[in-house]
Amino acid sequence: MARPVIALLTDFGTRDHYTATMKAVALSICPEATLVDISHEIDPHDIFDGAIQLAATYHYFPASTIFLVVIDPGVGSGRSGLAAAVGGYRFVAPDNGVLSAVFAEKEPTQVVEITERRYARPTVSRTFEGRDKFAPAAAWLAKGAQLSALGRPTSKYLRLDLPSADVNSDGIKGQVLRVDRYGNAVTNITRKDFERLSGQGDIQLDIGSHRVERVVATYAEIEDGEVCALFGSTDHLELAANSSSAAEFLQVKRGSKISILRTK
Amino acid sequence: MARPVIALLTDFGTRDHYTATMKAVALSICPEATLVDISHEIDPHDIFDGAIQLAATYHYFPASTIFLVVIDPGVGSGRSGLAAAVGGYRFVAPDNGVLSAVFAEKEPTQVVEITERRYARPTVSRTFEGRDKFAPAAAWLAKGAQLSALGRPTSKYLRLDLPSADVNSDGIKGQVLRVDRYGNAVTNITRKDFERLSGQGDIQLDIGSHRVERVVATYAEIEDGEVCALFGSTDHLELAANSSSAAEFLQVKRGSKISILRTK
Amino acid sequence: MARPVIALLTDFGTRDHYTATMKAVALSICPEATLVDISHEIDPHDIFDGAIQLAATYHYFPASTIFLVVIDPGVGSGRSGLAAAVGGYRFVAPDNGVLSAVFAEKEPTQVVEITERRYARPTVSRTFEGRDKFAPAAAWLAKGAQLSALGRPTSKYLRLDLPSADVNSDGIKGQVLRVDRYGNAVTNITRKDFERLSGQGDIQLDIGSHRVERVVATYAEIEDGEVCALFGSTDHLELAANSSSAAEFLQVKRGSKISILRTK
Repeated sequence: MARPVIALLTDFGTRDHYTATMKAVALSICPEATLVDISHEIDPHDIFDGAIQLAATYHYFPASTIFLVVIDPGVGSGRSGLAAAVGGYRFVAPDNGVLSAVFAEKEPTQVVEITERRYARPTVSRTFEGRDKFAPAAAWLAKGAQLSALGRPTSKYLRLDLPSADVNSDGIKGQVLRVDRYGNAVTNITRKDFERLSGQGDIQLDIGSHRVERVVATYAEIEDGEVCALFGSTDHLELAANSSSAAEFLQVKRGSKISILRTK
Repeated sequence: MARPVIALLTDFGTRDHYTATMKAVALSICPEATLVDISHEIDPHDIFDGAIQLAATYHYFPASTIFLVVIDPGVGSGRSGLAAAVGGYRFVAPDNGVLSAVFAEKEPTQVVEITERRYARPTVSRTFEGRDKFAPAAAWLAKGAQLSALGRPTSKYLRLDLPSADVNSDGIKGQVLRVDRYGNAVTNITRKDFERLSGQGDIQLDIGSHRVERVVATYAEIEDGEVCALFGSTDHLELAANSSSAAEFLQVKRGSKISILRTK
Repeated sequence: MARPVIALLTDFGTRDHYTATMKAVALSICPEATLVDISHEIDPHDIFDGAIQLAATYHYFPASTIFLVVIDPGVGSGRSGLAAAVGGYRFVAPDNGVLSAVFAEKEPTQVVEITERRYARPTVSRTFEGRDKFAPAAAWLAKGAQLSALGRPTSKYLRLDLPSADVNSDGIKGQVLRVDRYGNAVTNITRKDFERLSGQGDIQLDIGSHRVERVVATYAEIEDGEVCALFGSTDHLELAANSSSAAEFLQVKRGSKISILRTK
């Protein structure tokens, strides 16, 4: 039987021991788990970026992977903890919207509010539920516990209002979702929407005060000093430069508007 | 049988291959080990921070976990290498005090100076004993070697003078031990000492030139622009702000003094 | 049977999900693999540094480890993908020279251009072949596929022109290969070449406008404010300071020249 995979996504950074402490707790419950880091460098409390990144990667994981997602500014407050099933995957996270982008793609088949104390550590700190509640819940799922055993079914959970592109026959208005390490500005415009529009005639593409002149297929086609559009690994339109940061060149960041208009 | 866990704590950073090289050596000796990173972002040569972080996390790990701790400014010099048993855990580290905070909590049941060459690589570099001596020692322990096989028992090893809070009936004088990624300033004042004092009457809490007005239970209770005290995940008093850095706001760092006084 | 090891080296950073997505794909194909990170903090597109670091670490890994190396500015362009065997190890990487330093030490016994689509994901993105082509190829090798099954043998692949030290009877002219986290400036001068020269008489060692007065055996011997030469963990000469950055002190970086001359 394949070893269960637990994939971790947090805003804990890598200087402090917090992620290791969660892994320690998980391995104490389920020693056979394979632990995979998605990222721990989400900006502190940036639920939105966690949501976007989780949705971009989760479906590449082995079936039945468990995602332990702890970006949790409301730790210890009234907000509850969730365990959810989507496709063959399961997710454990605070109820603060961090699973929204996953749910937007595919409705969860089951969501429970985590209430069962026997799947948590005996004492649950009000400042580190990642360690005392979420890591144990994920590990018990990895160990074979049923999602329904963790608590009671709920349909009342927070969903972020994720910005979707505004698409009509004249054009598309979108925005930058995130800037990656290379300075690529990834937008919320899909290849499908873009190609439907561009297939009908000429277009012009503007971001900030900059007009983007070329859509290319690969980063290597971009000339020095040029910013092009291309479709990145998640098939969303992104702005990219050659061996430098397009986001810096364009002075754009999350939320920056991008407009594509038909010109004839 | 559960796979042995080796947990690594170093100041190697994540840009260079040094940690991977230690892991490579460990897996060559004990391929069935599960490797867990505690942190590699300890500031270069910061033995004190390594000691504090190790003590904060080790007891969450599965019984019999082996800790491979390499913060080692004296590599290749006269300082020896240690292997120690504490509770069910074992530790491999240079003899420079990095295990002090673990030992301060719980006396080691056994400490040996690592001398046995057959548990090291054939050639031991004087600039990278982590690779040639400590990683092999940890891996052989994971493989089943006895601690006593690694060398001779010793009771002469370095202990750091860890600052403990000064507690009396009028108040507590403590200090900041570390600042974490969120800017929380974690002190050496325990919940127990604090509650014994605050249970007897009103108190006032000062750090630098700042008076802290509220003790709260969760980060979410802190107002914008406010710094509060709360008890963090290790049950030590910490200063925290809401979605910003308390340490920056207060202009405090490791060693900054905190004073709690009874006012009636 | 020992679990196969896949070691990853990329310039993806740790903020984005890209490395996790490659791991997800690899584990989906070969769930029993042990994944080890060499580094993901190679500067974006810095093939040279990836090559140097890979060569410094690979031979410490267990026999039959597979190296998945994705530093790939030419992703999606005409450049092909390579799988190579060196010693008992196998390497999967874009054909851009990133394996050059490994090959310079030891000629590969087999190199194939990766062409077999059945060892790739069904759709290969032109912006993320790491996910769609290289991670699957590495995982299939871990799973037991033969190197020759991945594609056709090739002898036409890119090799970087790696700077080797210029050694003659009067002296050695070398250069800095990389600066590590501690600020140590690692050069391309080997201990062997250095000792052959210094064994014949007095020498003087200059880097930039700075004369290095002492060759020491350990970092701990270096005085405050002093820069010394020593032989680091890969037996190359490096310039080091005591608890500070020699590279910063000397104002040197990759490519900076170092000269060693016989003085009598």
